[in-house]
This record gives sequence, structure tokens and C-alpha cells, in this order.
Amino acid sequence: GLRHKPYHFSALCSLYFVHRGQESAGIVTSDGESSQAFKVHKGMGLINHVFNADSLKKLYVSNLGIGHTRYSTSGISELQNCQPFVVETLHGKIAVAHNGELTNAVRLRRKLMRHGVGLSTSSDSELITQLLAFTPPLENDDTADWVARIKNLMNETPTSYSLLIMHKDIIYAVRDPYGNRPLCIGRLIPVGDMNGKGKDNSETEGWVVSSESCSFLSIGAEYYREVLPGEIVKISRYDVQTLDVVPRPEGDPSAFCIFEYVYFARPDSIFEGQMVYSVRRRCGQQLAIEAPVEADLVSTVPESATPAALGYAQKCGLPYVEVLCKNRYVGRTFIQPNMRLRQLGVAKKFGVLSDNFKGKRVVIIDDSIVRGNTISPIIKLLRESGAKEVSSFSVSTIVMG
Amino acid sequence: GLRHKPYHFSALCSLYFVHRGQESAGIVTSDGESSQAFKVHKGMGLINHVFNADSLKKLYVSNLGIGHTRYSTSGISELQNCQPFVVETLHGKIAVAHNGELTNAVRLRRKLMRHGVGLSTSSDSELITQLLAFTPPLENDDTADWVARIKNLMNETPTSYSLLIMHKDIIYAVRDPYGNRPLCIGRLIPVGDMNGKGKDNSETEGWVVSSESCSFLSIGAEYYREVLPGEIVKISRYDVQTLDVVPRPEGDPSAFCIFEYVYFARPDSIFEGQMVYSVRRRCGQQLAIEAPVEADLVSTVPESATPAALGYAQKCGLPYVEVLCKNRYVGRTFIQPNMRLRQLGVAKKFGVLSDNFKGKRVVIIDDSIVRGNTISPIIKLLRESGAKEVSSFSVSTIVMG
Amino acid sequence: GLRHKPYHFSALCSLYFVHRGQESAGIVTSDGESSQAFKVHKGMGLINHVFNADSLKKLYVSNLGIGHTRYSTSGISELQNCQPFVVETLHGKIAVAHNGELTNAVRLRRKLMRHGVGLSTSSDSELITQLLAFTPPLENDDTADWVARIKNLMNETPTSYSLLIMHKDIIYAVRDPYGNRPLCIGRLIPVGDMNGKGKDNSETEGWVVSSESCSFLSIGAEYYREVLPGEIVKISRYDVQTLDVVPRPEGDPSAFCIFEYVYFARPDSIFEGQMVYSVRRRCGQQLAIEAPVEADLVSTVPESATPAALGYAQKCGLPYVEVLCKNRYVGRTFIQPNMRLRQLGVAKKFGVLSDNFKGKRVVIIDDSIVRGNTISPIIKLLRESGAKEVSSFSVSTIVMG
Amino acid sequence: GLRHKPYHFSALCSLYFVHRGQESAGIVTSDGESSQAFKVHKGMGLINHVFNADSLKKLYVSNLGIGHTRYSTSGISELQNCQPFVVETLHGKIAVAHNGELTNAVRLRRKLMRHGVGLSTSSDSELITQLLAFTPPLENDDTADWVARIKNLMNETPTSYSLLIMHKDIIYAVRDPYGNRPLCIGRLIPVGDMNGKGKDNSETEGWVVSSESCSFLSIGAEYYREVLPGEIVKISRYDVQTLDVVPRPEGDPSAFCIFEYVYFARPDSIFEGQMVYSVRRRCGQQLAIEAPVEADLVSTVPESATPAALGYAQKCGLPYVEVLCKNRYVGRTFIQPNMRLRQLGVAKKFGVLSDNFKGKRVVIIDDSIVRGNTISPIIKLLRESGAKEVSSFSVSTIVMG
Repeated sequence: GLRHKPYHFSALCSLYFVHRGQESAGIVTSDGESSQAFKVHKGMGLINHVFNADSLKKLYVSNLGIGHTRYSTSGISELQNCQPFVVETLHGKIAVAHNGELTNAVRLRRKLMRHGVGLSTSSDSELITQLLAFTPPLENDDTADWVARIKNLMNETPTSYSLLIMHKDIIYAVRDPYGNRPLCIGRLIPVGDMNGKGKDNSETEGWVVSSESCSFLSIGAEYYREVLPGEIVKISRYDVQTLDVVPRPEGDPSAFCIFEYVYFARPDSIFEGQMVYSVRRRCGQQLAIEAPVEADLVSTVPESATPAALGYAQKCGLPYVEVLCKNRYVGRTFIQPNMRLRQLGVAKKFGVLSDNFKGKRVVIIDDSIVRGNTISPIIKLLRESGAKEVSSFSVSTIVMG
Repeated sequence: GLRHKPYHFSALCSLYFVHRGQESAGIVTSDGESSQAFKVHKGMGLINHVFNADSLKKLYVSNLGIGHTRYSTSGISELQNCQPFVVETLHGKIAVAHNGELTNAVRLRRKLMRHGVGLSTSSDSELITQLLAFTPPLENDDTADWVARIKNLMNETPTSYSLLIMHKDIIYAVRDPYGNRPLCIGRLIPVGDMNGKGKDNSETEGWVVSSESCSFLSIGAEYYREVLPGEIVKISRYDVQTLDVVPRPEGDPSAFCIFEYVYFARPDSIFEGQMVYSVRRRCGQQLAIEAPVEADLVSTVPESATPAALGYAQKCGLPYVEVLCKNRYVGRTFIQPNMRLRQLGVAKKFGVLSDNFKGKRVVIIDDSIVRGNTISPIIKLLRESGAKEVSSFSVSTIVMG
Repeated sequence: GLRHKPYHFSALCSLYFVHRGQESAGIVTSDGESSQAFKVHKGMGLINHVFNADSLKKLYVSNLGIGHTRYSTSGISELQNCQPFVVETLHGKIAVAHNGELTNAVRLRRKLMRHGVGLSTSSDSELITQLLAFTPPLENDDTADWVARIKNLMNETPTSYSLLIMHKDIIYAVRDPYGNRPLCIGRLIPVGDMNGKGKDNSETEGWVVSSESCSFLSIGAEYYREVLPGEIVKISRYDVQTLDVVPRPEGDPSAFCIFEYVYFARPDSIFEGQMVYSVRRRCGQQLAIEAPVEADLVSTVPESATPAALGYAQKCGLPYVEVLCKNRYVGRTFIQPNMRLRQLGVAKKFGVLSDNFKGKRVVIIDDSIVRGNTISPIIKLLRESGAKEVSSFSVSTIVMG
Repeated sequence: GLRHKPYHFSALCSLYFVHRGQESAGIVTSDGESSQAFKVHKGMGLINHVFNADSLKKLYVSNLGIGHTRYSTSGISELQNCQPFVVETLHGKIAVAHNGELTNAVRLRRKLMRHGVGLSTSSDSELITQLLAFTPPLENDDTADWVARIKNLMNETPTSYSLLIMHKDIIYAVRDPYGNRPLCIGRLIPVGDMNGKGKDNSETEGWVVSSESCSFLSIGAEYYREVLPGEIVKISRYDVQTLDVVPRPEGDPSAFCIFEYVYFARPDSIFEGQMVYSVRRRCGQQLAIEAPVEADLVSTVPESATPAALGYAQKCGLPYVEVLCKNRYVGRTFIQPNMRLRQLGVAKKFGVLSDNFKGKRVVIIDDSIVRGNTISPIIKLLRESGAKEVSSFSVSTIVMG
């Protein structure tokens, strides 16, 4: 990650999170003093494509920065929509990284344009950035009360957003009141303590903020805590401090995105105090209770729902067996479409381990209710390859049911 | 250029103008109906690098578009500063291409930010675009009175700008009241008339607008007229119409950029009714009157000031002779700096035609008062290669004197 | 793959075999008539990088071609060493794709150079190609007896090579007498038969040859048979025909490369009549018999030895549990080396599923005796993450023992 | 160029010669000791595209190397045909750079293939390289008598070739007996002498060999002499030594390529003791004697024949005036072909300086008898732009007449 000096802090939306967004990547660093001195590098594609030694060198102005990788939910896939967004305001530059999708984006767009702001992208995140630049009290524009601006933003739009906002030497970490998207804080382990010499907690090397805790291990940090729904956290050189917690409308439950558990998150991440892998396995176990099947073996479509399949198999007392292997290097763009290849369907994507299931009754545990159309050709492929019977369950049905 | 249908109009800041800006290039086209349906393609570098068959295909939605190539005078060289700028306003999208440099940019930036607009680039041209989005009457935002907005912009900033503003099926062409930067209008010659079958002026194929008239020939258009200082021209499917001419403050003279004549413009362009080449040659003639020299031959540093040198030679009655040839393909980035190469200096860039001037007295006519440090090593090189005497004059001194 | 016409044949070293070589890729196609009319496209890197729609279009001259992806065992990684090799001989062009490593390459190089052949690469495969061009009977050079030339080659070098040799409309498939590298033949299933309408074996759409049978499913072909050790197979428009089987020296056993089973091959490939996955699982079972351990759970380092770990777990009656997940998108070149990152070691590459093994005794089944240095930091990582005990076995020890 | 140490020699086919070949570029360097230690970098396109800081760094093993840029006369434009060619022979590696086209290439191809050499390119230069590897005395292959091999090559093929052959620490420079292609030797000026401190000729920094002397100035070298037709020059650390001069068949005249004077060479190059520019100007003067015209002004099509036009103008006593300017940045690939653009023809390529010739009688001096089809649309363009009369002459008619 970014260069780190002892006793300073370092807050970064981890660079390792490519699995959360492969569409674009960007990093903004700050020298921590002048709000003008932001260094920005953004580009389309995977992190490894966007950044190289040269671009990283230019970013190394300090130990302070935010980053973003994008998986578009709204907005077109183009360079202008790459985050973090940086704008200059009357009180200096701010950089904003946003995970989420605003439910009232259309109304907000119109409101900003009515105020005379020309919008240059189709991205929700530009709305957030301009709202932060725009918000009152304009009559008293000698002080930049960023907390008031953030609270005003939260007032304008209820959900969904997890935000990192960088201004000079401060990073604000914010989750919307419904806690829809994850955000958690990690503590950098002092290098001297990393090889088990006994950790000395009296000193802190720095702080990192990330959508998923799984990134912390990769950079030598440890899980500290989640940012709470509605919480505004200020991360400075000196400490991590809760500035405020904006409540939900009375009676509204929190609304953590269920797909974080089922799809998006890496299995070693921790949300709401539980490891994602364990949640997925418990789903499989629950599925076995609710929908037991007479079968010889339990399997999955690689590599989505292995924990659920192992949980199902264990609960049923059936063996867990692999029936497909992934054809990793299949080149989608490479294959010229013709009748032969259209007929092939899923056979292009998987190898069949037919010796493992010939003449057997197979239960497939999948997670893809959303992209559910893939399971039926797989069942057909397994039957043609010798399976006696194939049943299938989608674990997300259980989770959402 | 862009696809063209008979009897429609076509306005484009010509794609051939790379010699005015090699830093970035961009084109925005409009389907002419919906203000949402802009197609945008921009990128860093030369036109041939930025555009290819695919990107052009995507732009071909109509016969209406504006383009821009950038030679930065202010603002950093980066993708975000590429023009044309496109923003969405309450009344639909506008695209803006700007040639010039605002004299009161700092004040305008502050004014916009005080109104709550976050600025995302360091470019003057973003200020123009946001001022067009922002300008009153906001109280009456059901109509988008673009002429009022343009006049408000011209009120806010006196110079320098030549602008193309596209909205739906209209292109506005605007020059600042001082006429600092050029802008002229061409008429597309009907294809059937192009090979001298006798031009039928009764019908117009379309209109093109360009900084320099030299581009018209290349696309089969002919020079129509200049946009006047302060003029707001509306180009529509039906005609080219002057909406208004905003005057300069009383007593202020027009201020056409002298470097257009000396450096920037291609010699076959026409400004203020005169061909640039002729102006340059007359400068050489005037120089011969003001600064005659006893010499055997007149030459120039290729290929800047050939017209001036020919004018000087003709007026003095001396032969015009080539003394240097350009080492066209020298690879700047390729040459590893070492002592040998540092010593070489200008010899890397030119070949010496020593047989042409050995033992002769040489007058060099150059145009580079601005980059004037190059002439002295050239004089040294010519002397070491056998010239008896070398005098040199910079034609821009005359022009500006 | 390549375009295919009914009733003709198609032989291609499958394009899907990227997992056997990511260093370079190449395809040569033949129009089947003139030996001059080879189309060649080769390049460094992955297939998807080397080939695009344009390069494939140029290759589509017929339904006949050979391809190659390279994983260098000898020779430098550079474009000149990319296969297939194409040379022109007195009897027309030949194209050669080679998998293997010649044991007597040094002697062969010297022999060829002594005959006056200048060698332009460091590749074994050039030696094979020049030997085919060179070999006698030169006195009778009016006929190109390719079988005699292939047998002469096999006489000059015993092992190791699997070869595809294309000349006009014939492809020769050859394995060395020791059968060191795999090579197998597949039959294209007629498109009309592909969706289970009942296969009609009376007609053959074409033939494919590949190092691994796993590629057949992906292109709508079915496993036909292996090329035998020492066999020379001629594949023509009409049939697949054994021309000869060159024997090993008496008493020498066959020598199929053991690493095909352990590492290289995809688990769904078939060698010597058995599925690779099954061999790997049986290795795990055998390991459980030879080296049983008191433990609570069996796991593996993803994703090398899952079949062996499942086999071990099943034989021991212990649960198979995942303890690590792969950090797929870690950017090696991206990470700036500093002390923090050097300390991190394997933690950069894996996520830890600590809830799955806290306080437990873990057995890790790995396959990496060759790259065996990776297992000890993994054991350390698991211990620091809460494992009570960690044992580890490398399944390749068993295979090779 | 390449790194240079004092008192050593440096022979390189200058890197600046891109104007002689923009199709491909390559450099081979030698550490001067082991014949194995060649470093090679080649690629398609311009030098600046092929080489960067990294590739040059790898080449810096010594002060010895040869380079080549290609303008194909025979052979396909593809990477395999890039020069220099490097092959390993029994006596070590040789690198060969070739300018020219063999008149008996077909016979030589067949001869080499009959000897059992597989040929991998369609390039003449591979034939030269394999002939050098192949040539006798093979019976006595313990010594590599390179002079005998070079003379044998010259015996096998009379013309046309200028060659650089590098082996260990020697570079052989060879011209065919007819002297068809140019080759000349330059002497590096010691750095201390470069700025006119008085040249001390007692010490030589190194030697450079180039097709054209114009490259010498650019790297701080001075013209030393031409390699003579049929001459074999050995360039070593110690000196430049003539090994032999192979004569032409009795009665055959030398045959220096006339197009070097007319087209290819840069005007500041020296061939056969005369500056190319002077030859071109004398051609114009001779043309004025042989074909005088009643006219008002003399001009040329930029930028081919300016010296000839100046010579013609001077001899006739007419003014030299520019009538066209080049549209430098016209993007060939960029322009979508449609009827409009097809009609435009040469107008795409040139700007017209109509004020300079309106109502005047114009003589155009061109050099393009070979590509002669361009002149008639230019005459048409000038007439349509107001010229009263347009005559045209091609200077190459004179040269060849």
C-alpha cells in the first residue's frame, strides 16, 4: 500500500479490493497540509493495469490517501465516472470515494442543476461530491464545517453509501444510517511486531479503512472495528474519533446488503461480528434441514458456493465431491461465435470430472438465484456425462427467505 | 470529417487542426434532437492516436458535432482537461469547445465556488461551461435562454475566447469582444460541384466553423467569412444568423493575437482578409528596409520563417539559399544523455548544407524571439561549417515593434 | 476454434490449452493445397493477448491448422522462440509444434551447424524443424518422403517430444518412443448431434489433436484415443492412420512425465486410460495409509491438491475443511517492496478462514515438493491464526516414492 | 548512440537513419569477446517506437554494435524479416545488416534448400546470412576464415548489397562490386575536441559506418571515406583496414543507385565526393538549360525537389515562390472514405498559397517520375486556385536521361 511513517496514520481504501470492482481504479493522496496538493491517478480496468511503478511514485507524497475500485451499479463505464472524485471548493479540495447507490439520485440531480451546477457525469458519486461542495451555511463561508456538510448530505439522501472523504490531513469515514454497505477500520501492526515478537499495543502505526476486513491481513493490519450505520468517523494523525451517529427514521430496521454475504464479499471478511464463510456454511446447513434430499453426493458449481455445499454435505452426512473443474483461461473475446460454439454453452466454461459421479445421485448447491439461468445447462451437462440424478438448490433462497 | 447528409448543416471544429494542438483531442456529436444524446470521445495525444475507426463509428449519430485539439496555455496536461467539455444543465446537455485563456480566471473560479459549485479541473474552459450552466435568470428556469446566458458569460469575462457551444441541434459560435483568437465559417461545397463542373451556389450542403480557414480546403469547404469580435452566431439547419454583437468598452482597440501571424497559424490561413503567408513575407520585406545587411545570401532555420526570408531576400536582391536541413526523425526520448550528446546541441536537430555557404556571408531570418535561445548555437554551427559571417534577425521583432 | 466445414477434417493443437503455457502463443493454418500458403500468427503472452478478431480472420483460410502455447523449459522467453516453427524446404513449407525437451540438444546443435546450417534461436524445436528439412535422402530430392524424415528424426533424438507436423493437407502427430509427453486425438461431434439428439457415429466432422483431452469438451469434440509412444499418425481429410510405431531400445521402460499427473494437467484430462483427478485422489488415499495423522481436520493450500486432500480425508475419516482462501487479484508488480511487505510473506497471497480451524489440529496436503519452500510460512500463518497443531504432507512424495 | 569508451572503436549503422526505413528497426550489440554474447532488440515500426530506455539499457554491453532500419524492397513486412539477422554458426554467432536486393535470390534460395537448410523468412538477407554460415571450406571447420566466407558470398551473388557483419570484436563492412548501395565510414571526434578547442587528430575515439554521411554530424563524428565498390573493410579496436577489393567482371561499369541522389538520401549526405543537395541543384540548372519555359515563377511540390527548383529558378532568372504548403498532420487512417473525401484528392495533403500565384504562369519542378501520377491533380488544383498557366518537369528525367 502507500508508504507509511511511524506514528503517523494511514487511511486507505485498500488497494487489494479488486475483487469488489474490476471496472476502474483510482487513488488520491494528500500531502496532509495544503488542500491543493492532491495527487490523483485513475484509469479504466484492473488495478494492475491502471497503476505501475511510475504512477505509484507520483502518488507517494505522504502516508495519507484514499482509493477506489469500481463495479458499476449505475452510471456508464467510462473514465469520467472513475472514483475517487476530486473537486475544488471554497475551502480547498476534497476527494470522495463512494460505495453504494443513491435511492433518490434523480431528485438530487435535478436539485443540483436547479441551483446552477452543471453535472459532468452520470454517477451518483458526483452528486455526493457536489452536495458536499454546495451545502450551507453558504452565508458563513469563512469556515468549512465539514461535519455540518456531511450531516446535510445524510439529510438529503438516506441510502446507500459508505464514504471516505479526504480534506487536507483528515479522512472522514461515513456509513449511511441503514448501514447498507460495509465499512470497517483496521489498525496497522508495527513492523517490529509483525513476526510474533509480542505485539505492543501502546503504539499505533496507522489506520486503514476498507469495505472488507479481508484486505487487512494482506497489508499487515488487524481488524479494529466496523463503522456503525449512520456513524461519522474522523481519522486524524492522532486518533479515530466518532463525531456523530445519524439515526434512521424511527421504526426503520437496518438494511445490510444481503448480497455481501452471498456473493460479493470474500469469505474471510467479517461483517456484523461474523465471518462470511461461516454464514455461508450455516446457510448450507440450514438448507439441509429445510430441504434434505436422497442422494449419493453433494457438490457445487466452482467456485461460488463451496462453503454452503460443505455445510449441506456435513449436515446430511453425505460425501462432498467435486464434479466440475473451471476452465480458467477460456477466452471469451477469442471465441468466434458460430453454431458449434453456441451449442457448446456451459461446456466452454467447465471441465467434467465424470469418474467422480457416474451412476450417482448428485445434489448441486449453488448461490446464483440472480443469475439462475446457468444451473439448468449444468444439470443437463452432468446428466449427459453419466449422473443418475441431479438435484439443485440455490443457497440464496434460504438466505433471503 | 463527420458524415454529411445533403441539405443539412454540419458544424465542426475541424479535425485537421492538429497543428494547433497536439496535447489532446476530442469530438462531441449530437443527434440534433435530444439534448441527452451526445456522443463523446476524448483522449490525450494526437488525433490519429485518439481516434480510430471504432471510436469514429460511435460518433456518427448525425451530421452535427464539435471537436477540439488542445495546446495548453493554462491548466495541467491531463485527460480531465480535454475538451470539448460536456455538462448536463436543467435544460439539457451542452458541449463547449474553447480556444483562449481567460484573463480573470482566478476571480471567476472563486465566484463559482462561492456559489457552491465544486470545480473538478484547473481549466479555464470548465469555468466557461459552469458559467453557462449557472447563469441567470434562475428564477425563470423553464426556458433556457442560451443567448442571454452567453451574453452574461461575455459580461463576466472580457477575453480571450473563441467558443463553439452545442445544444440539441444548434451550434453557437462566439468570439470575445477583443477578437483575440480567430474563428471563421466555411461553406461545404456540394460534392457534385467539387470537380469544377461549375459551382451551383443555390444550395448549401452544410457549414463548418474553424479556428483557421486552411482546414476548409481539406474537407471540401470554402471560406465564407470570419466571426466578428464580440459576435454571437447561431448555426442551425436552416442558416447562419448573427444574434448579437457585444461591443468592447469604448476606446479599447481590438486585440488579435499577433502570434497567430508569426507562429501558430498555417501560412495558407486567412485572418482579417489577408493570407498569413503574405503577412509573413511582408514582414521580411519590411525587415530588409529597416535592417539591410551586406551579405552574400539569405536563409532561415527550417521551417519557421521561410516566407519572411524569401521576402527579405527579394527586397535586398540577394539569393535565397538553404543552409540547414531538418533531421526529421531524431528521437528525442531515444537519445541517452551523455557528455557526447550534450555537446552536440543543435547538431542533433539539423543537417548542414555546407557546400551552399562555405566562405559566404549569411543572413539568417528567424521567427523565434520567444524561444530565442536557439539561434546562437546555430550561428556557431554555421561558422564552424565554413560560413564567413553570420548575421541573424528575428522577424517577430518587426511584427511586434 | 478454427472454422470447420462438414465432412472435412480439422486438426488443431487446441486453443484452450493456455494453462499449459502462458509465455507465448501461435497458430499456423494451411489452405491444404499449396505448401506456400501457410498463414502464421504468433506473439508473446496469453492467447487472449496474442489473438484478436483481426488476426483470427487472417488465419481462416481453411479447416486445417496447428497451434502452440509455450511454457519454456529451455530456450529464452522471446518472440523468436515462439512456436509453431515454419520453414521452407525443397518440398514446400512445413510447420512444427513441439512439446518436450530434447536430451541430446547440444550434440544436435553442433551436428547441424557442422553441416552449415546457421541456427537462429536457442530452441530445441528449431533443431527438430531443421532436422526435418535437412534429413536424407538428399540424393533423391525429387520426393519428400516425410515419414522417412520423421523416422530419421526419431533416430537422431530419442526423447522428449510430442509433435504436430503440418505439410500441405496432412498433419503428422508423433510421440517419442518413451511416451514422455502426452498427445491424444479427439473426434469432432457433428453439430446436429451435440444436443443429445442421439449421436450418429457414421459420419465424422473432423479430428483434433491435443496434449490434454480436457480441451475436447470445450470445442464439442470427444476423446478418441491416445497417440502411442513411438507412434507416427497421419491425419488426412479421409482418416486417422498409423504409419509406424518406432520402438524403444529393448529393455527400456516407457517414461511418462510424472508431473503431468501431479501439476501440469487439468484434473479432467485422461492419460493412460485414467482421469488425472482420480490419480490425484488415490495419491491422497495412499498417503493416508502410509502416513496417518491424529488430527481434527484435513485441508490443502488452494488450489493445488484438493483431490489428494479429499482422498486423504475420506480414507482417514476426518472432515475436509477449507482453511485458506486465495487472494486472487493480488498484484505482484503493483506492490512496492518495503520492509512491511517483505514481512508479510504468504499473507499477501491468502486469506485466513480462522473460524474454521481455531483450536484444532490441522493436516495440510500439498503437492509442491518442487516449490516446497512455500509450506513452512503457511504452517506458521495457520499457527499464528489459532491452529492447535499443523502437520503437512506433500502428495508428490508418494507419487514419486 | 551506443555507449563509447575512449580509445576503443564503435561501429554502428546509425540509429538516426529512420528516413531510410520506417518499417522495422533493430540493434545487435556484442561484448566483443564471446561470440555468444550478442544482445538483440528488434521490432516493427519507427525507431522511437521500437526502442525505449529499457531496451537500450539491455543493449549497453560494450561500445560495439550494428543496427538496421528497414524499407522493404522484397520480403513481407513482418517481424521475422527484421534485421540485423543473427545466427549461430560452428564458429560462433554472427550478426548481419543488409541494405540492397539480391538479383539472383530465387536461385540462391533453391541452392540453400537443396543443401538441406530450412529457410524461415522470405528475406534476401537471410540468404546472405545462411550463405555466410554455410560456405566452405567445411572440410576445414576448425578455423572460421570469415574473409574467405565473405568472398565466397560475393562470388555467389554479384549485387546488390552493402553489408555490416559482426563477429566477436570485429565488424566487416562490405559493398558489392557494382557499388549499388552506399556505405561510408566516419570517425568519432573526441568529446574534448568537439567545441572547437582545436581538433587533435592523433587519437581516434572510434569508428562509425553508415549508409549516409549525414548521420555523422548528429553523433559527433566526421566523414572519413566511402567503402569502395567490392571492398571488404575490417574494423577492429585498432584500425580500419582494407582486406580485399573484389573486382567487377571486366567491362562492367559501376552502378550506383540513381535514386539515392533523387529521392532516398538526405540532401546533406556525400556520395562519390559530392553533396546530394548540390547534385539536385545542378539537375535543376541543367533542366533550365534543356527545357527553359516562359513563366513568372518557379516552385515545387513540398518538399521533394526544392534544391532542383531553386537551381532551375536561378538559371532562368525567375523568382522562386512557394505555392503549396504541406498539411503535415493529415491522418490517413483517420479519414473515413466517402464520396466527398475521394473527390478531394490532393487537397487533403496540401494547403494552397493562392495569393502567391494568382494570375501568374507557374513552373513546377518535381522529382517523382516513379510516383508521377501525383503531379496532374496538383496542376489541376493550382489552375482552379487561379494560376494562369502551369508547366511541370520531373527532375529525375534529366538525371536518368
